[in-house]
Amino acid sequence: MDAVNHQVRLAARPVGQPNAGSWEHTAEPVGEPGEGEVLVAVRYLSLDPAMRGWMNEGRSYIAPVGIGEVMRALGAGEVIASRHPGLAAGDLVTGMTGVQEYAVLPGDAAIAVDTTLAPLPVHLGALGMTGLTAYFGLLDIGRPRAGDTVVISGAAGAVGGVAGQIAKVRGCRAVGIAGGPEKCRHAVRDLGFDAAIDYRSQDVAAELRRHCPDGIDVYFDNVGGEILDAALAQLARGARVVICGAISQYNETGGMRGPANYMSLLVSRASMTGFLVFDFADRYAEGVRELAGWYRDGRLRSFEDVATGGVAAFPETLLRLFRGENTGKLVLRV
Amino acid sequence: MDAVNHQVRLAARPVGQPNAGSWEHTAEPVGEPGEGEVLVAVRYLSLDPAMRGWMNEGRSYIAPVGIGEVMRALGAGEVIASRHPGLAAGDLVTGMTGVQEYAVLPGDAAIAVDTTLAPLPVHLGALGMTGLTAYFGLLDIGRPRAGDTVVISGAAGAVGGVAGQIAKVRGCRAVGIAGGPEKCRHAVRDLGFDAAIDYRSQDVAAELRRHCPDGIDVYFDNVGGEILDAALAQLARGARVVICGAISQYNETGGMRGPANYMSLLVSRASMTGFLVFDFADRYAEGVRELAGWYRDGRLRSFEDVATGGVAAFPETLLRLFRGENTGKLVLRV
Repeated sequence: MDAVNHQVRLAARPVGQPNAGSWEHTAEPVGEPGEGEVLVAVRYLSLDPAMRGWMNEGRSYIAPVGIGEVMRALGAGEVIASRHPGLAAGDLVTGMTGVQEYAVLPGDAAIAVDTTLAPLPVHLGALGMTGLTAYFGLLDIGRPRAGDTVVISGAAGAVGGVAGQIAKVRGCRAVGIAGGPEKCRHAVRDLGFDAAIDYRSQDVAAELRRHCPDGIDVYFDNVGGEILDAALAQLARGARVVICGAISQYNETGGMRGPANYMSLLVSRASMTGFLVFDFADRYAEGVRELAGWYRDGRLRSFEDVATGGVAAFPETLLRLFRGENTGKLVLRV
Repeated sequence: MDAVNHQVRLAARPVGQPNAGSWEHTAEPVGEPGEGEVLVAVRYLSLDPAMRGWMNEGRSYIAPVGIGEVMRALGAGEVIASRHPGLAAGDLVTGMTGVQEYAVLPGDAAIAVDTTLAPLPVHLGALGMTGLTAYFGLLDIGRPRAGDTVVISGAAGAVGGVAGQIAKVRGCRAVGIAGGPEKCRHAVRDLGFDAAIDYRSQDVAAELRRHCPDGIDVYFDNVGGEILDAALAQLARGARVVICGAISQYNETGGMRGPANYMSLLVSRASMTGFLVFDFADRYAEGVRELAGWYRDGRLRSFEDVATGGVAAFPETLLRLFRGENTGKLVLRV
């Protein structure tokens, strides 16, 4: 095989926002699959806020990406050579491809997807890890009951958008928080939120009091910072706060901002719980089945924000997440 | 009845630490019990960090003490007149007497205590609401399993000291955090903690890493602030953080300090949960029975720090809590 595999590697650990110096662009020959492996031509890369954490040194839920290593990323693509009995050339799969054009993966770690149900990028979005994150985070950690008031930050983002739709499927009132009037319109019109609060132009605490007069039963947090504090101040008794992410804080250089209103957990006899979708691996099949069912009957819609420019555009595309520029699932076409 | 009832009333809502201007000392004739009520001569008052919160305006789990009202307090004393069929003069009871020498209480709200089992102040401490707070907070919210590492702040204080002893009864390793060498000695020698960390002279984060090499399974927090952050940084996977109080923050005028390390809840798939002992009212009998059993067989010891000076000494005695001057349950002899 003569093709060249273009890659993006981590060159240096960023302080604050990643910049050009954080990355190294490399090219090498396309690899060959060993026994049990497959070679995947990557078509789409998933861009996730969690990537920022993977770039940091230190103890976390997963080892940091090493300096000089291909940046870790979920991708979707086509098997072009297989030495795994369960997969054949032409199969479409998702897996941890990394930010590169071709990836050699263990066949067992590549998940075949059904593109007759939904196009490939959807399998990185509502029907992929994004959807599963919303599914297990909202339902298993948040435990909403029909009639509950569920508030979701990052409501027009990938996970938040799915979480809001699941809340509606489960008979909850869903209030979204998003940045800017377009995203708020998208949340209400396309995702079915009952209301949306624009944190850029509105007083989030006041709007939460207005939209959630009986308090918030489930708060699904993707952003941290001031918005988390505003939500804590409005918890209903026995509320569940789900910590899915804290995108507002990932590039902070002065240390994370802790939720000053955390004693609301005591006043409201509430809990705040973190989770990782990986812990639900033995239930992914259940989650995908449920999500696919809702997708098929139109109760779950998937919105992708497809960036172009190939892997070379990865560094700049990643920053769009932190600037809040994406609506729906941000993927990069390779 | 000619006796005079000396009282301490809330005169003004303090900003920061309460001072002389926060209180009004009054005297009035001793009241008469109405139908169903009892008149109690107060012998001991319970001093609790929560009192500081009761002095604040605003939404909380209980209405604030009104300006001009007798300061809310748990007390223990002797029934000297009864118009309730279940209680007679001479009975010893606990109840919400307020900071005064005589209290008229609904008989149903006065709890008869057994002073053949333990002296009266113990019924405000290990066998009273203090003990129940530790019991339900640690066992129901913290859910320790035998072999778990349980870390408790305010370990030489009233609730922390009982929580540590219950952790030992349940077969856990108990690590206490307290201020100063004497309290640390008390925690290990008298309360049975396996280790104690002196937050005044030691690096709490480093000591937690040393004493909890496999992480903290249950963190029972009475203090908030930096110590909560240090504990969050050392959580074991699936840890439970119990929010019982945040005494380090109650007199802060610059706003509460939020736990900057709260994203450890995600990394460790952990939860942080607040609770109020009042929610367990229908299980108080179970709690007291268990605590009394451990007290009887010597596995639970009660330590009271008995201040003197009568109700007039209440304002100054209260401040001892916030200065960390008490060891064990702080009560004021009336």
